[in-house]
Amino acid sequence: MAEKFVSERNLKFMLYEVFDVASLTDHPYYAEHTSETFDMILETALKIGRDMLKPALEEMDRNQPELVGDEVRVHPVVREFLKECGEGGWIPATAPEEHGGLQLPIIIGMIPRFVFMAANYSGSVYMLLCYGAAHLITSFGSEELIDTYVPRMFAGEWQGTMALTEPQAGSSLSDIATAAEPTDHGYYKIRGQKIFISASDHNAVDNVVHLMLAKIKGAPPGVKGISLFVVPKLRIEESGDLVPNDVNIAGIYHKLGYRGAPILQLSMGENDDCRGRLVGEPHKGLVYMFQMMNEARIEVGLGATAIASAAYYASLEYVRERPQGRKPGTKDPALPQVPIIEHADIKRMLLFQRAVVEGSLSILLQCSKYADLEIVSSGEDKKKYGMLLDLLTPVAKSYPSEMGVQSVSQGLQCLGGYGYCDEFPLEQYFRDSRIHPIHEGTTAIHGITLLGRNIPMKNGAGYRLFLDEVREAVAAAEKEPALAPQAASMAEAVEKLERVTDYLLGISEKVGTERFLADATLYLELFGIVCIAWQWLLQASAAQSALKDDSSEADVNFYEGKKATCRYFFAYELPKIEGLAKRLMNNDGLTVEMKEAYFDD
Amino acid sequence: MAEKFVSERNLKFMLYEVFDVASLTDHPYYAEHTSETFDMILETALKIGRDMLKPALEEMDRNQPELVGDEVRVHPVVREFLKECGEGGWIPATAPEEHGGLQLPIIIGMIPRFVFMAANYSGSVYMLLCYGAAHLITSFGSEELIDTYVPRMFAGEWQGTMALTEPQAGSSLSDIATAAEPTDHGYYKIRGQKIFISASDHNAVDNVVHLMLAKIKGAPPGVKGISLFVVPKLRIEESGDLVPNDVNIAGIYHKLGYRGAPILQLSMGENDDCRGRLVGEPHKGLVYMFQMMNEARIEVGLGATAIASAAYYASLEYVRERPQGRKPGTKDPALPQVPIIEHADIKRMLLFQRAVVEGSLSILLQCSKYADLEIVSSGEDKKKYGMLLDLLTPVAKSYPSEMGVQSVSQGLQCLGGYGYCDEFPLEQYFRDSRIHPIHEGTTAIHGITLLGRNIPMKNGAGYRLFLDEVREAVAAAEKEPALAPQAASMAEAVEKLERVTDYLLGISEKVGTERFLADATLYLELFGIVCIAWQWLLQASAAQSALKDDSSEADVNFYEGKKATCRYFFAYELPKIEGLAKRLMNNDGLTVEMKEAYFDD
Repeated sequence: MAEKFVSERNLKFMLYEVFDVASLTDHPYYAEHTSETFDMILETALKIGRDMLKPALEEMDRNQPELVGDEVRVHPVVREFLKECGEGGWIPATAPEEHGGLQLPIIIGMIPRFVFMAANYSGSVYMLLCYGAAHLITSFGSEELIDTYVPRMFAGEWQGTMALTEPQAGSSLSDIATAAEPTDHGYYKIRGQKIFISASDHNAVDNVVHLMLAKIKGAPPGVKGISLFVVPKLRIEESGDLVPNDVNIAGIYHKLGYRGAPILQLSMGENDDCRGRLVGEPHKGLVYMFQMMNEARIEVGLGATAIASAAYYASLEYVRERPQGRKPGTKDPALPQVPIIEHADIKRMLLFQRAVVEGSLSILLQCSKYADLEIVSSGEDKKKYGMLLDLLTPVAKSYPSEMGVQSVSQGLQCLGGYGYCDEFPLEQYFRDSRIHPIHEGTTAIHGITLLGRNIPMKNGAGYRLFLDEVREAVAAAEKEPALAPQAASMAEAVEKLERVTDYLLGISEKVGTERFLADATLYLELFGIVCIAWQWLLQASAAQSALKDDSSEADVNFYEGKKATCRYFFAYELPKIEGLAKRLMNNDGLTVEMKEAYFDD
Repeated sequence: MAEKFVSERNLKFMLYEVFDVASLTDHPYYAEHTSETFDMILETALKIGRDMLKPALEEMDRNQPELVGDEVRVHPVVREFLKECGEGGWIPATAPEEHGGLQLPIIIGMIPRFVFMAANYSGSVYMLLCYGAAHLITSFGSEELIDTYVPRMFAGEWQGTMALTEPQAGSSLSDIATAAEPTDHGYYKIRGQKIFISASDHNAVDNVVHLMLAKIKGAPPGVKGISLFVVPKLRIEESGDLVPNDVNIAGIYHKLGYRGAPILQLSMGENDDCRGRLVGEPHKGLVYMFQMMNEARIEVGLGATAIASAAYYASLEYVRERPQGRKPGTKDPALPQVPIIEHADIKRMLLFQRAVVEGSLSILLQCSKYADLEIVSSGEDKKKYGMLLDLLTPVAKSYPSEMGVQSVSQGLQCLGGYGYCDEFPLEQYFRDSRIHPIHEGTTAIHGITLLGRNIPMKNGAGYRLFLDEVREAVAAAEKEPALAPQAASMAEAVEKLERVTDYLLGISEKVGTERFLADATLYLELFGIVCIAWQWLLQASAAQSALKDDSSEADVNFYEGKKATCRYFFAYELPKIEGLAKRLMNNDGLTVEMKEAYFDD
């Protein structure tokens, strides 16, 4: 079984050499931390990932959670890990001290998550959901709600969930039908169905706290009538006793992968006794929930990257050990076979994986850095970083998700027939990774969000800020002769992106919304490739600056590897925008006009 | 559960309107057949697929074959299906009458295979292997071998296999180590290990006949020392009794998908009592085996296409029934939700699937037509069709395999969260399809075959014949004003392919074999896209010719659907060659020069 699942060296490079996280500690909000704290966090997370989570990876897949009676049984490591997370402060790592958190920079909070996800993605989601749900309560809930729920959720004793999707309302949240009826007792009676709710009941916690969207009777139709409720599995009586709250398990899903986490269908109010507490004001539920959704989108991108990281190292280990064939041109069968890493096409598949993994991680950390800068700055700067984060969230969710599946697939391909067999972990990673283009908004939804909302928003202000950021990276790289070719390609790519964007915005009124957005998924793909090229330019610049005459052999290999992977991205991946741009600038309405009956045959 | 898995209408369109199979019956070799025979074959195959194979699809996946004692237990439908195949003459459908076959055109023989594969891929492979192995014996074996083995294999009573791969020799056949020691009794003593052998032992047949590669003691090293043997599981004593032949099961693989067919590791000669009979002459084994491998490569392409076909229809059924959301621009939540097939991005994903499925099927039938024309023609024509078939085999294997996985993945995506759950068949199709880029030569191997062998072969004669074929299709399409844009794009694409090919052939000596072939996988991808565009142009031309003023509504929908899918391919898929060409024409040796140590981190 492959040992390595993340690169400690790379994580430190990203934090200190690319994103200069040490500078964050200059700001009063983060002043209590030092690089030593950050290093310790990384090391401890690696230890937990290696010793606790990774050993359970296969077992959690082979023995998936089952509903036995009315109990969902999960692997024992889940309780053990949640306990560890509670004791170590991992769940509220980035929460303010006033709420019991460690007040770590958000970019630092990404590191243990990434490590846990790479060690065992299914195992990691329990703690992520605890944080996201509790963070919603601390952000918008009353003091009473905070005091009642948050400490137990941060301690990993009570599971948090986000309960949005319903049978008739998947991507279309405006059609949510779960009803909340006001009572004279301060609570609402909840009645409805939720589907696809992750970790929404299991035997590794003592209670489950659903952050649930529902509509108060008489609310306006559509998304403007959605409110947010805390709906616990067991509610607290005045006596302090926990009693069932009429939240019932209606079914458990069996899935392609991501099998270590139970995904359930829930039915509320079957006995007219499900009570929920309103979070914040009525009808603002979707606005509130967007905080958790946007955090979760970054986390999905991170999870996709983490699985691809584990798959990359597993395939790298294999190709270094497996002898097969000889180099083209040297066919003498008397010569020994070479390890397959010596074949150019294997190196291409490794470079592809590395480019996707480390490029995706980079855009995710870039977003987290913006989130931190938004926290520590004020005025126009605060707005700027907020807009950049908002603009890039669909990309940070979708590029890693879509390309993560491709990356794992190439990892599997490196193993040939063994990649298809369960003696090696690649086939599981392939199954696990396929969830990411689906959950937290499908890729299509994010395409529409990017092109239909984020780009035109505030007259394109966020988009222009993004272009400035890329041009700044180009200007810095231009100064390094070794990076001049990539800097020039980046400048061309940005121009191409601008031409495509201008074209689409220019026709949007004339052709109407439907046609304007018809190829939004392709626009998102193009935008994503440009973003990752930008991130590779930043990484190559940092590597080039770090290379010294007296660099150690290990450093030379690492930095040259970074530069080579950047070259790979610009040579093999960036050219993909040519075909995308050609299509996008030919808005002929093909898919809009395609009649359903034409699919008859 | 989705019902439809192939389109009868499309199969007839391909056979009669695109490839004019009726004309084959003008040749004496096929003169006994008529279109009525072909239609009956299609209908019977559909019935078997629907009533026998498809109902077992899930069960064969959920209860995969296991080794119990020394018996591999497979689903009961396997014996039932093999019996049906034997009685119906399905196995030797394309074999000459003299060997007990139906002497059907090869293109017609593809149809029942495609139907069986789409109904249940795992279930279909048993009969395919029986034919391929028996066909090797009829082609190169002695009368005695033919009489002893072929009738039982054609009857589906004895399983055939192709036993090539060894633990130390996967893609590198020159390293095969299985030994064959001559004896004075006419047989050879076989000793060695084989891995990944499909259907190589199971309880649905009475015997297994391995067509096995091995080296006779003292043979030349490398591929020139490989011979082909018939090695049965049970050998026939002079008394007529069947006795064990020392072919032992060393293990069974558990796989990501394709679970209904057992893949085994075999160990021959553990008791020094494994006897094999030489097929043909010594040391010519690899040449002989290439017949079965090339047939199997076309079959792998067909299997990939068939699974993608089933996935396409399953997703089409879902998106027609599933209401979700409203069209962009019409956000009034009081309006009813629309079936998701009305969303442009869903139609894009359907068109992608259809373009891949029907484009792949088309290139496979094109190859089969060439195989038939090779059989019925003579002289230069015979050579021409043989060269075209040879040239295109790597494409016909690889494009459907690589794009089939993508196609199924888009089908899964159409279902959102449900696509990831095992209540729907998409997740199984996703797992099943992933084998195809691996078995019968990985995609990388086929890239090297195409660029390194087939293109330069005979001074590019086959390649030039191919260019002529495409230009002929362009010339025909140019005459139809409705197809003029696609005809022009096709001409441009062929020019681009020529520029890339000329560039690569031009530098090959200077940069050396390794660099010349470094991006052969990308060349194969580009070549494949051009081939499928060509096939779509042929299909659109046939559809355009068939559309009449008095066409029925069903015909109009079908032909317009064909034309729209052709437009889709040219608008969305063909532009992908831009990025590929850009990369291919920049042979900078990046992956060749990349040092292994640069992957250290």
